[in-house]
Amino acid sequence: YTITALPGDGIGPEVVAEAIKVLHAVGARYGHTFTIREALIGGIAIDQTGTALPEATVAACQDCDAVLLGAVGGPKWDDPNAKVRPEQGLLGIRKALGLYANLRPVTLHPLLLDASPLRPERLVDVDLLVVRELTGGIYFGEKRREQDAQGEWASDLCVYTQAEVERIVRLAAGLARQRHGHLTLVDKANVLETSRLWRSIATRIMREEFSDLQYDWMLVDACAMHLLRRPSDFDVIVTENMFGDILTDEASMLAGSMGMLPSASLGSGKMGLYEPIHGSAPDIAGQGKANPLATILSTALLLRYSLGLEQEARAVEAAVSAVLEAGIVTGDIARGEQRAHSTVEVGSAV
Amino acid sequence: YTITALPGDGIGPEVVAEAIKVLHAVGARYGHTFTIREALIGGIAIDQTGTALPEATVAACQDCDAVLLGAVGGPKWDDPNAKVRPEQGLLGIRKALGLYANLRPVTLHPLLLDASPLRPERLVDVDLLVVRELTGGIYFGEKRREQDAQGEWASDLCVYTQAEVERIVRLAAGLARQRHGHLTLVDKANVLETSRLWRSIATRIMREEFSDLQYDWMLVDACAMHLLRRPSDFDVIVTENMFGDILTDEASMLAGSMGMLPSASLGSGKMGLYEPIHGSAPDIAGQGKANPLATILSTALLLRYSLGLEQEARAVEAAVSAVLEAGIVTGDIARGEQRAHSTVEVGSAV
Ligand SMILES: CC(C)[C@H](C(=O)O)[C@@H](O)C(=O)O
Ligand SMILES: CC(C)[C@H](C(=O)O)[C@@H](O)C(=O)O
Repeated sequence: YTITALPGDGIGPEVVAEAIKVLHAVGARYGHTFTIREALIGGIAIDQTGTALPEATVAACQDCDAVLLGAVGGPKWDDPNAKVRPEQGLLGIRKALGLYANLRPVTLHPLLLDASPLRPERLVDVDLLVVRELTGGIYFGEKRREQDAQGEWASDLCVYTQAEVERIVRLAAGLARQRHGHLTLVDKANVLETSRLWRSIATRIMREEFSDLQYDWMLVDACAMHLLRRPSDFDVIVTENMFGDILTDEASMLAGSMGMLPSASLGSGKMGLYEPIHGSAPDIAGQGKANPLATILSTALLLRYSLGLEQEARAVEAAVSAVLEAGIVTGDIARGEQRAHSTVEVGSAV
Repeated sequence: YTITALPGDGIGPEVVAEAIKVLHAVGARYGHTFTIREALIGGIAIDQTGTALPEATVAACQDCDAVLLGAVGGPKWDDPNAKVRPEQGLLGIRKALGLYANLRPVTLHPLLLDASPLRPERLVDVDLLVVRELTGGIYFGEKRREQDAQGEWASDLCVYTQAEVERIVRLAAGLARQRHGHLTLVDKANVLETSRLWRSIATRIMREEFSDLQYDWMLVDACAMHLLRRPSDFDVIVTENMFGDILTDEASMLAGSMGMLPSASLGSGKMGLYEPIHGSAPDIAGQGKANPLATILSTALLLRYSLGLEQEARAVEAAVSAVLEAGIVTGDIARGEQRAHSTVEVGSAV
């Protein structure tokens, strides 16, 4: 299998290195060969090539079985008015590869219940999956910035087409069918025309193709509350790009440390991009403090979704549980008497 | 003082009735006369007049010192594709009165720490105010729904002008100056052109007019996390309309029960609209179970912001604390052995 690694910025290279070690361990145990090719993205790509997404990177990603990404961004490239910005790499690669669905599962290992800002009793049965539409909506619509007699103004256009809604709803409903059979569709249909389009299209698809599933609608503001009030009631949540951005970050707090949560970005084929949901954490970069488990769990998703290696994926997940139980953890999740282990120590233990 | 009461739907009439009792008690104690005029809004207005915001309601609101609103909406009027919908009343009155700033303070009475889904130790010092822009952005931009050869598509336009950004930033910064001197501006400047406009305008205003304040920027996805991770670090948050809708509902969960949180919507004059942040709760309407404290605390904001009666506002807030301490509370916040009191009992006790 050929994997393109995009270590990116900040702690990206450190956590990706540990995930690659884990991939090679899987290869040795189960008899696979993983060929890893590195490419540039984000701030480091800007520094070395002048653009956040060099053509060579796109080409490498188009010609492999899966992509493993660290993180992009940092204070050095932080000016929102700059012409080239690290996140253009992330947005660009999603679009270039047609990765229209971002999957973020949230589950809590019992040992980490204490790390959450929420009361443990609310969290015990949490096992949810947020499916975020990733290549449409206000992220990619027309942007304007103009000046008129009254001063400056700006606009962003949020657009969704029938085909975009259909494919993400089908993908999310298919995942719900493999899980607990319950899909929650989140929108703002009392205000947005795009949301009303989602409702009419999704209602038809759910009735015609997924009549075995339970589904309901929730307004995005209500969802922001219910994620805290009754998180264990959710199974699969599907929503548009911007709402998904906000809700997935909120949902990540259920798990306490961002250092534990993986994500997968999928398109219409098997190819996918896998990354931890945490950012580049420039404040701790290069210090061996970064928690590699979110990236390692992302490789489990890579094994599962892009390579179809379910047994291998479970082996990685079981190994992560085992290191948690053995207390071999980085400082962000160390408890009580536990020593803060280094990124490399945790990766090696897995 | 002339107050327009818009009881609206569901539990709206019950909670507004208690708030009016409190206003009259303030009048008797401090020597003011409050003349209350009722008008229709929301679902009840649709039923009686065919529109969610009758002209008589707009006229009444334009000719008074302040507006007290209950809640709008309910299952009866829930079809998102209907031509007339209750929330059009709410959106319409905000626009008609030029109420461009929605203020939602979140503080927790120590007795209610246990009602929150968050761990009490994170909540002890929470005292934040979210200022949401209320008459611009994607709520009011052009909406389209079309059909082409590929199928249907829809769009919503998010627009902000310099003048809209200037007035809300000034208002929020002015409030921060009266509080703890710290303003957090929340946007999505790594993706949205409107956010980049906000940043450039707000940066200039903060430097030129509020150099005594501390201010920082936060991306909306990060804010959705930090509201849970370190809620007591915030003082005043200012953000655009849609982000404000989501973040205020999320922030309300810090306080556990929505039944405690008031809001104020302000424009350029003294006139304002005051309402509890909870909705119409049709499931408990007419049963005397609704918590009237959020609406009563909204009248405290009315006394403070529209009428300039600070002493009277504090008297109402102190009375609410006293009934909490006396355990005269509705079922949503009753603890342990406490009896669930009725809406009327709680209102009378205040
Ligand atoms: C970096 C940014 C553009 C990106 C997004 O908003 O999609 C990030 O927040 C994410 O969620 O992957
Ligand atoms: C009812 C709805 C249109 C409204 C909004 O989104 O503004 C509500 O959620 C609110 O926050 O007051």
